[in-house]
Amino acid sequence: MVDMIVISIQTSYHYSVILPLLEYSKSNPNLKYLFLEWAMACNLDQAEQIYKAAANRGLQTIVSLQGRKSPYILRAKELISQGHIGEINSIELTGNGGWYGYDRPNKSPNYIYEMGNGNDLVTNTFGHTIDILQYMTGSYFSKISSMVFNNIPEQDIVDDHGQKTGQKVKKSVPDHLLFQGTLMRGNVPVSCSIKGGKPTKKFTKNLVIDIHGTKGDVKLEGDAGFAEISNLVLYYSGIRANDVPIANNGDKYNTQPKTDMNMYDAGKEIMEVYHLTNYNAVLGNIFRLYESIADFHYNTKKIPSLPSQFLLQGFEFEGFPTFMDALIVHRLVDSVYQSHLLGSTLDVTNISQLPNFTA
Amino acid sequence: MVDMIVISIQTSYHYSVILPLLEYSKSNPNLKYLFLEWAMACNLDQAEQIYKAAANRGLQTIVSLQGRKSPYILRAKELISQGHIGEINSIELTGNGGWYGYDRPNKSPNYIYEMGNGNDLVTNTFGHTIDILQYMTGSYFSKISSMVFNNIPEQDIVDDHGQKTGQKVKKSVPDHLLFQGTLMRGNVPVSCSIKGGKPTKKFTKNLVIDIHGTKGDVKLEGDAGFAEISNLVLYYSGIRANDVPIANNGDKYNTQPKTDMNMYDAGKEIMEVYHLTNYNAVLGNIFRLYESIADFHYNTKKIPSLPSQFLLQGFEFEGFPTFMDALIVHRLVDSVYQSHLLGSTLDVTNISQLPNFTA
Repeated sequence: MVDMIVISIQTSYHYSVILPLLEYSKSNPNLKYLFLEWAMACNLDQAEQIYKAAANRGLQTIVSLQGRKSPYILRAKELISQGHIGEINSIELTGNGGWYGYDRPNKSPNYIYEMGNGNDLVTNTFGHTIDILQYMTGSYFSKISSMVFNNIPEQDIVDDHGQKTGQKVKKSVPDHLLFQGTLMRGNVPVSCSIKGGKPTKKFTKNLVIDIHGTKGDVKLEGDAGFAEISNLVLYYSGIRANDVPIANNGDKYNTQPKTDMNMYDAGKEIMEVYHLTNYNAVLGNIFRLYESIADFHYNTKKIPSLPSQFLLQGFEFEGFPTFMDALIVHRLVDSVYQSHLLGSTLDVTNISQLPNFTA
Repeated sequence: MVDMIVISIQTSYHYSVILPLLEYSKSNPNLKYLFLEWAMACNLDQAEQIYKAAANRGLQTIVSLQGRKSPYILRAKELISQGHIGEINSIELTGNGGWYGYDRPNKSPNYIYEMGNGNDLVTNTFGHTIDILQYMTGSYFSKISSMVFNNIPEQDIVDDHGQKTGQKVKKSVPDHLLFQGTLMRGNVPVSCSIKGGKPTKKFTKNLVIDIHGTKGDVKLEGDAGFAEISNLVLYYSGIRANDVPIANNGDKYNTQPKTDMNMYDAGKEIMEVYHLTNYNAVLGNIFRLYESIADFHYNTKKIPSLPSQFLLQGFEFEGFPTFMDALIVHRLVDSVYQSHLLGSTLDVTNISQLPNFTA
């Protein structure tokens, strides 16, 4: 009597495990939830097949793009969607972190340094981060352009104390990504630079997301370049309504009354710094993701219009990221590699459209 | 008996003024120096013709890419060229400033908002800044990709007090540039986002240049996004040699003895904050540019191998930017617009090569 299956294995095994599992599980009428860790698969083709199989099976899918559940990301999304920074007009994102630097710990498994295993700077670091950015801003991209670097094709093996052993080993996954693009909503310029290797920046936090608007700014900072598992600090400066709650325009399940934006008093500039000193982001964001599944299952929040299935969380506050949300990120990751290989700016307007696999 | 002519007029008049001037000035055997404000011309074709005419005339040319004379830029260049941050492995640059925002002062001349006059975000703001970046790092670009935005095609006229007059006016010059590329030297990823309009960023300085190396970082910050006329703050963290001056590998006129990089003591991590409280960068950098012309003319520094003419300053500490340095920037600016229009990453390896116009 299994209600939920959680897949927590190497990404490269997802494809070969999930397809038979979906077939076999048909004998279990109780099975309702399939939880899969990000990334879905090693490449877009496999991800699409997994998506299709799960969709045909009718399961409620969940993917651990858990940054969407970070309290900092949700607060930033709230500030943005309620108009507290006005219209977004530019975004800069820089990250530094991960296994892809000059040194490789001797206990580190080889597969994370080899292309094609679904563990690399673009799929993982960028994938999580850009999903968070899209979620916060409520927009997918229209155009993107990227450059992918493997400037450290050979790493030094280091021992448990971080000392070089003298051994060198090849690396085929990238160590840097330059990405720029325009958000569909507002044609907003987004600049992004993600660097592999252990966090080293001395005068800049190793994760910085700067979201600038016509009436204010939101800044997120973290010690390492992984927004989805880092404890962050959120800085906000902007305007506040006259103590009237503003309509939540990003969530159709929100029942608060809508408020006219003209009620803003532009003179009331405010600032907020949001930080939870003891928040364990590694566990906390995943915990909140499971909590949201429970909220859905038991309708804890007593939402009258709660759907029987979340096909796509999209940019809603309620729910959790599904295989469809993950597929959109996989398509973006694939487009990033394509843009680099082709040396072209790509139109990605259509990658957020739902496929009609089940027809 | 004129020794030097200084052209300080609207960029759009450069071409029509300089060509006859160069012809007419042949009757003056004393004329040795031609000083031209950046930008050289409204477009690359005119800039090339101006370059060619001046080269044929044999004059010593100078261009006001005066950021090269900023004490902060020179100190950063020194730290980098002496190996104090190791090998550069990533660069991020963000700027915010200029006339290209939501408001337009009623006294502001129209020509700076119209494309084709040599005054725009890419030519001016980016041109100055990227010249400075190339100068500091000692490298031109190999590949570039860009996106140019005119998200504010209509501006609000504001009065002397910054109040909207209700009048609206069209703008055709860009208000945002996304630029990414790789430095020729070291294949370094460079990410760049330059935003028009008055400086507004609340949690980030309006100019930030982050240069990261294998052994340290250099950060430059300014209140407005114009590195060439802003008083900056330079932050440096890295390693220092054992109190031995390190060879200056970026300047062939430097006579200090070369020192082995192995003399570094990696344990000696140091930090430096460099700021001249009362430095007037608007006047100061231009003053230093003129000073460098005098240094050259009188050989103030008694450099034995000083050439009789600077065809190209390139990345040397001595001298001043010439028409050739400016032509390289014009070519880069032209490539930025081309990359945007074509939606392509461009190979710009050849744009720093000297043309053979005089043959």
